[in-house]
Amino acid sequence: MTKLMTKLTRRDVLHTGALGLAAAAVAAHAAEAAPDRKKFQITTKEKFDAAAIAPYRGTHPAVYRHIDANLDAHIAELRRWLRQPSISAQNVGITEMAAMLRDDLRGLGFREAEIVPTKGHPCVWGYYDAGAAKTLLVYMMYDVQPVEPADWRSAPFEANLVDSPLGTVVMARGASNQKGPERAFLNALSSIIAVEKKLPVNLMIAAEGEEELGSMHLPELFDKYESRMRTATGAFFPFNSQGTDGNVNLTLGVKGILYFELEATGATSGGPSRAEIHGSFKALADSPVWRLVQALACLTSKDGNTITVPGYYDPIRPPNMEEQRLLNAMLDKWNDAQLRSALGVERWVDDLEGEQALLRYLCDTTLNINGIWGGYTGEGGKTILPHKATAKVDSRLVPNQKPDEALAMIRRHLDASGFRDVVIRPMSGYPPAQTSVNAPMVRTVISVFNKHQRTPSLSPRLAGSAPYYLFTERLGLPMMLGGMGHGSGAHAPNEYMLVHPREGSRVAGLAEIEKFYVDMMYALAS
Amino acid sequence: MTKLMTKLTRRDVLHTGALGLAAAAVAAHAAEAAPDRKKFQITTKEKFDAAAIAPYRGTHPAVYRHIDANLDAHIAELRRWLRQPSISAQNVGITEMAAMLRDDLRGLGFREAEIVPTKGHPCVWGYYDAGAAKTLLVYMMYDVQPVEPADWRSAPFEANLVDSPLGTVVMARGASNQKGPERAFLNALSSIIAVEKKLPVNLMIAAEGEEELGSMHLPELFDKYESRMRTATGAFFPFNSQGTDGNVNLTLGVKGILYFELEATGATSGGPSRAEIHGSFKALADSPVWRLVQALACLTSKDGNTITVPGYYDPIRPPNMEEQRLLNAMLDKWNDAQLRSALGVERWVDDLEGEQALLRYLCDTTLNINGIWGGYTGEGGKTILPHKATAKVDSRLVPNQKPDEALAMIRRHLDASGFRDVVIRPMSGYPPAQTSVNAPMVRTVISVFNKHQRTPSLSPRLAGSAPYYLFTERLGLPMMLGGMGHGSGAHAPNEYMLVHPREGSRVAGLAEIEKFYVDMMYALAS
Repeated sequence: MTKLMTKLTRRDVLHTGALGLAAAAVAAHAAEAAPDRKKFQITTKEKFDAAAIAPYRGTHPAVYRHIDANLDAHIAELRRWLRQPSISAQNVGITEMAAMLRDDLRGLGFREAEIVPTKGHPCVWGYYDAGAAKTLLVYMMYDVQPVEPADWRSAPFEANLVDSPLGTVVMARGASNQKGPERAFLNALSSIIAVEKKLPVNLMIAAEGEEELGSMHLPELFDKYESRMRTATGAFFPFNSQGTDGNVNLTLGVKGILYFELEATGATSGGPSRAEIHGSFKALADSPVWRLVQALACLTSKDGNTITVPGYYDPIRPPNMEEQRLLNAMLDKWNDAQLRSALGVERWVDDLEGEQALLRYLCDTTLNINGIWGGYTGEGGKTILPHKATAKVDSRLVPNQKPDEALAMIRRHLDASGFRDVVIRPMSGYPPAQTSVNAPMVRTVISVFNKHQRTPSLSPRLAGSAPYYLFTERLGLPMMLGGMGHGSGAHAPNEYMLVHPREGSRVAGLAEIEKFYVDMMYALAS
Repeated sequence: MTKLMTKLTRRDVLHTGALGLAAAAVAAHAAEAAPDRKKFQITTKEKFDAAAIAPYRGTHPAVYRHIDANLDAHIAELRRWLRQPSISAQNVGITEMAAMLRDDLRGLGFREAEIVPTKGHPCVWGYYDAGAAKTLLVYMMYDVQPVEPADWRSAPFEANLVDSPLGTVVMARGASNQKGPERAFLNALSSIIAVEKKLPVNLMIAAEGEEELGSMHLPELFDKYESRMRTATGAFFPFNSQGTDGNVNLTLGVKGILYFELEATGATSGGPSRAEIHGSFKALADSPVWRLVQALACLTSKDGNTITVPGYYDPIRPPNMEEQRLLNAMLDKWNDAQLRSALGVERWVDDLEGEQALLRYLCDTTLNINGIWGGYTGEGGKTILPHKATAKVDSRLVPNQKPDEALAMIRRHLDASGFRDVVIRPMSGYPPAQTSVNAPMVRTVISVFNKHQRTPSLSPRLAGSAPYYLFTERLGLPMMLGGMGHGSGAHAPNEYMLVHPREGSRVAGLAEIEKFYVDMMYALAS
């Protein structure tokens, strides 16, 4: 991303020096009066009906029995993983966890299982040769978020079994995000291999130790294995997809992201260049804080909710018919008031509700200020003219936005608005990822959920971001994340995954989670 | 100032809700296209000539001799004051210093000398009845700034005599700001009283212990003594007015200030109300950071250097002929390049130079962001939608701006621009203070400087702020700050005041400083 800055064209720059305020104001006016934002609409009444997909009909009773007979051992395997810290942000246990994953793959009979060094934490690559026609690419993350042990009911790396209203859970950092479902998946593989001697599909494992840091070096794994990865029929990420009510939600895509810092300094603008100066000199010296504020302000409408960068909305592809059918199904359960209450938000922007809120949420781009700082921020009234001000800005990208193009448009608009001196420091950027609900792999996974009587709700995408474009755009594969099971507390204290649900629960326990993965493997093979 | 908010009128508010962006943009356009800023000009060629004022001709050889004979004792008095810490921000030694001042006044024969409690640190009031026709009101501050002892060459409260290239200095917190010149003034009084038995004028002392905190409770002293203070012929603040070259600079006024925090919160705008939420919800939820940025942006032109609040410049009185004559004299020595170099600033706003720079600096108002903060400001790329963002803003006020009116105009403009939800939290505010160069007291003080062969340069005002309106506006008195002597390091390590200048120096030592004050007292009496 850092080389993006050199790509920017400077052709259509409007100089605002001599013409000054009037020209700039007219430009701002034009941009605000006619933002080129698209108004999305759902033009079909059709709803995607996941229940219409025939349940997977295969049965694997011997493997199921093996799981039930070895459940305590499988729980022990799960706890072994969770007891190994692997905090990527603090480089705690990363080497050990990567080795544990590699050794476990070797133990399962993976022909290739190796640690792949990167410029950051290492990746792990694995290949299981089943001699099968089909190959599944499994994405894994072996790192976890940091912990504040004092906030936990049970020590975060003891992985104790703890009673809860939902049943017995394993409580640990990584229990749900993501070692829990990943180890359940490997447990399923081990039972298949124990009973049937081999897996029904070939498997590639692409694991990273920097998911919680932004997957900066995952592309290096792709550089090495891309041609082989491309031979897979799809990519899969083991995931606890059940809510506390047992209902399953699946998503078929993620937004991309452009993340950058915007910085104004006195050195480039005519303000104080070395350090803050006395505030009375504002009469004579430029203020980098005003520069930053005005540069930011020219990027959005006054309410901060519409982007005024020319052309920014142009590349966006409105939801297609397939996505509209998914959205229609989602709208049956969409509850604005409930979501607002959970977030502590009084109203949606532009007073959106229902269909328009859902469309804005999932199908539109955003421009957000994650943080802003400059000058004196303590108690009382220090009077200074600061020499620097910075903002952390991100834009969530939807199909067919590209981070390079988005960044270039922002740069051009800043230049044209007289803010050439305001620096953009790109921090990360990747495009969105999208998988079609009609991809055979998706239909197969739905059929397995239907066998387990948990017909999923499907969203065309998450409003959040993940670099799954590596799988969907770079490799051209469908990608799914999903599985039975429930957990919560990712990035928070008391993270857990349900192991033994209470009587009458509709949530799967570890045994059923593993049986689901068994079925899925066979279903994908056929 | 906190009650200001209730005074704001809401009559001419433009609602921008339904009309939305276009109306707001037009308003912004209008404001930017025709800022009602005044262009100041100097229309006279005349220069104020301080040298034309006849030197004070009185002589007081007996008092002079007393000073010379007791100089060591006077230095000891100075050191006694400087050894008593009186850090207002940390409430260190405040009580002791107030008592020391009171006791010293009593010792000098002040008929009244008392500590006056306020809601903050106490004031000290003193009255010396000389039975004279004229009364001088002397303003004092007895507090000092905090210290970082590790940064000092000599312990800040030992007040050691230290050799320097300028000669022997006393090094201590408060040496120059302001106990040094104040104690020198009292030393002068003690020599007059020792020799002549009484002072030539009546004296009122109005001392505070919160100057470094913003003089919040000084008005309480005025509430108590206002009618008596009004009987004075002028107010005086002992000050080291000499530079290292011995030249004397005097100022006849200060700017006022309006200082407030501007804050946007999710609770009032439709953003997250309780805490930050995931950044992906920017698609649906309002951002208090954008609200703050856009609210700030509507207050200035794009370059941040012209205020776009309607009517903001209207009350400003352009420099009158008297001030223009002072400015013409200042321009002989005004050096843009030198000042820019000292500040680390590349160019002045609007490429001002010379006369226009000086006019902007001393005669115009400002709007400055002292600090801004909100959301995540650490390393890396956390993705959040913050629930709050805040800026510390100040406006320096020149004649005839009033802080209440300025604040009300800003509030109205924010309301009219659609930012009713953005809160203004007033922190302090007071009007400018101005004394005429033609006031008899000013001419008398100049005549004393002329006697001491240091004809002063005079500025109509400082670009900085101090609450001297209490003396000039509230009491209607002329106010002067000045004196021979040199010191430096206020608010910094190694603060000092020169006591024994090196051979050939044009700077006064303690003896001459005191002799100046002796002359001044007699000159003011006549």
